[in-house]
Amino acid sequence: MSKKGIILSGMRPTGSLHLGNYFGALENWVRLQDEYECYYFVADYHALTTGYENTDDYKDNITNVLVDWLAAGLDPEKSTIFIQSNIKEHAELHLLFSMNVPLSWLYRCPTYKDQLNQMKDRNISTYGFLGYPCLQAADILMYKADFVPVGEDQVPHLELTREIARRFNFLYNCELFPEPQPLLTKAKVLPGLDGRKMSKSYNNTIALADSPEVVQKKIMSMITDPQRIHKTDPGNPDVCTVYAYHKLFSEDEVPEIEHNCRNGKIGCVECKRKLVKNVAKLTTPHYERRQEWLKRTDDVKDIIRKGDEKAREIAANTMSQVRKVMNIDWL
Amino acid sequence: MSKKGIILSGMRPTGSLHLGNYFGALENWVRLQDEYECYYFVADYHALTTGYENTDDYKDNITNVLVDWLAAGLDPEKSTIFIQSNIKEHAELHLLFSMNVPLSWLYRCPTYKDQLNQMKDRNISTYGFLGYPCLQAADILMYKADFVPVGEDQVPHLELTREIARRFNFLYNCELFPEPQPLLTKAKVLPGLDGRKMSKSYNNTIALADSPEVVQKKIMSMITDPQRIHKTDPGNPDVCTVYAYHKLFSEDEVPEIEHNCRNGKIGCVECKRKLVKNVAKLTTPHYERRQEWLKRTDDVKDIIRKGDEKAREIAANTMSQVRKVMNIDWL
Repeated sequence: MSKKGIILSGMRPTGSLHLGNYFGALENWVRLQDEYECYYFVADYHALTTGYENTDDYKDNITNVLVDWLAAGLDPEKSTIFIQSNIKEHAELHLLFSMNVPLSWLYRCPTYKDQLNQMKDRNISTYGFLGYPCLQAADILMYKADFVPVGEDQVPHLELTREIARRFNFLYNCELFPEPQPLLTKAKVLPGLDGRKMSKSYNNTIALADSPEVVQKKIMSMITDPQRIHKTDPGNPDVCTVYAYHKLFSEDEVPEIEHNCRNGKIGCVECKRKLVKNVAKLTTPHYERRQEWLKRTDDVKDIIRKGDEKAREIAANTMSQVRKVMNIDWL
Repeated sequence: MSKKGIILSGMRPTGSLHLGNYFGALENWVRLQDEYECYYFVADYHALTTGYENTDDYKDNITNVLVDWLAAGLDPEKSTIFIQSNIKEHAELHLLFSMNVPLSWLYRCPTYKDQLNQMKDRNISTYGFLGYPCLQAADILMYKADFVPVGEDQVPHLELTREIARRFNFLYNCELFPEPQPLLTKAKVLPGLDGRKMSKSYNNTIALADSPEVVQKKIMSMITDPQRIHKTDPGNPDVCTVYAYHKLFSEDEVPEIEHNCRNGKIGCVECKRKLVKNVAKLTTPHYERRQEWLKRTDDVKDIIRKGDEKAREIAANTMSQVRKVMNIDWL
């Protein structure tokens, strides 16, 4: 194999993805497919750590994530695409790791207390929520990933995975698990329509499932520089979310837009129309492709069946090595 | 089915069983086979909760437990005998339960702090050790057991399993899991050779793997009433471990033994010889049967293969119901 190594990454199935997810991860995933052996999975077990109380939308959410992946260019011929809960080995390795992972490692995980605080509306003082880095380690180490594409904030999590790998190798006197490294990518950050972080819970997203008309309407009602009343007033692009979007979507035109805004030569409406046109270059074809995939759910299922099968084969192989070094292969 | 219900019980594979295990559980298991649909399993995942640091003897330990079970009369035609770690569904159900089991339930489990204190020589402040009642719930509920044979001290554990069943049924609006009831049996309690609780760690056991010669030697060197010097001195059976053994092994002869001891009419050596003879009625045939089974390890493996298969079928069925009510059956 001439590829540069194994990559694993997953996303929770929270329903149709938005442009923030696209620029934050998905675009990168698509790019990595040619250089690395990639495993991309729907992290539906992980979704239960915070969402166990209401699973009514789970199946629709998974469908929506998958069609967005495929529409964005994840290619089942290049990457292994699978659903976590279809590979029971993840649960098994999680259980085996749980036996030797100190509670203190989990309590000290930097995101643990943060998230407990952030999600005060949910009852997540559960055993599973505490153990989620242990499940994450099982996901990553199962495929002996060399790299995990992460943002800076995720580096401590990956460090925990490495500690779990080291502890296992030490306890069972083996070199079964490699220590995966972070693949830090400068993800493009797209703010939400209101300038805050783009997030479903803020209701400020452009979803990949939004039709061209909806995207247009959302952009046309974005807030621009609030100091600017008349279109001949000089504007300040630094405080304008529309301008922040232009920087991602209107590359060549950006200097001109900035100049015209600062000099009151372009009105906000015209500026937004430009943005609509440029955003549509990405979102409209994506939308059309996702509509196509939605009509082909049997094909999507076939893709998952094949991905599951490939993942399961590797997982079964890893687990048979794990059982061997742990001496739990009596039969 | 005309049986009185489903029973599930497991034992950790700690190697050859001793007479304490026999009277405390195994004898009862054998009796229950005719009245109930019984599932008996080697709890090897559970053994990892406290024994993950050294698994060198795991396979031998499992073999020894299994031959003791079979020699004692567990009958694969009547009962389903299987190894926990061969049924991955246990790990899966454990993971799913973990998502909604509050940490407080586990910390408040009465045995948790006790065991942490008792096993100060081991590093068991682990995630898995904390979660072991959650794994136990998965074991029991997987087979929708109606009854679990337990001692009084285990009743709180079973209450936790019932709470987990209730919580699951409530969250996912179903009646998937019955609430298993304790099957309290007055187990006969056999003290160790030194009068303390019989336990491997006290080195005071009669193992079911002990040859008749070893059993004899162990009994002949038991301590009797320390106040009694000469065989004509009156003895006090109430403080004599040999007498405690007679009560279990020498039923008809007990009144006579007691009378003769109290009146200095039987010496301790003679009294022990009687005991050797009566203990041998149980242990020698058991020993011979276990020697036979040890020669037939291929047959033992076949028994486990069949038991695993039957257990797996039921477990797979339960899990497909679980996935359905939780909405995690996307494919």
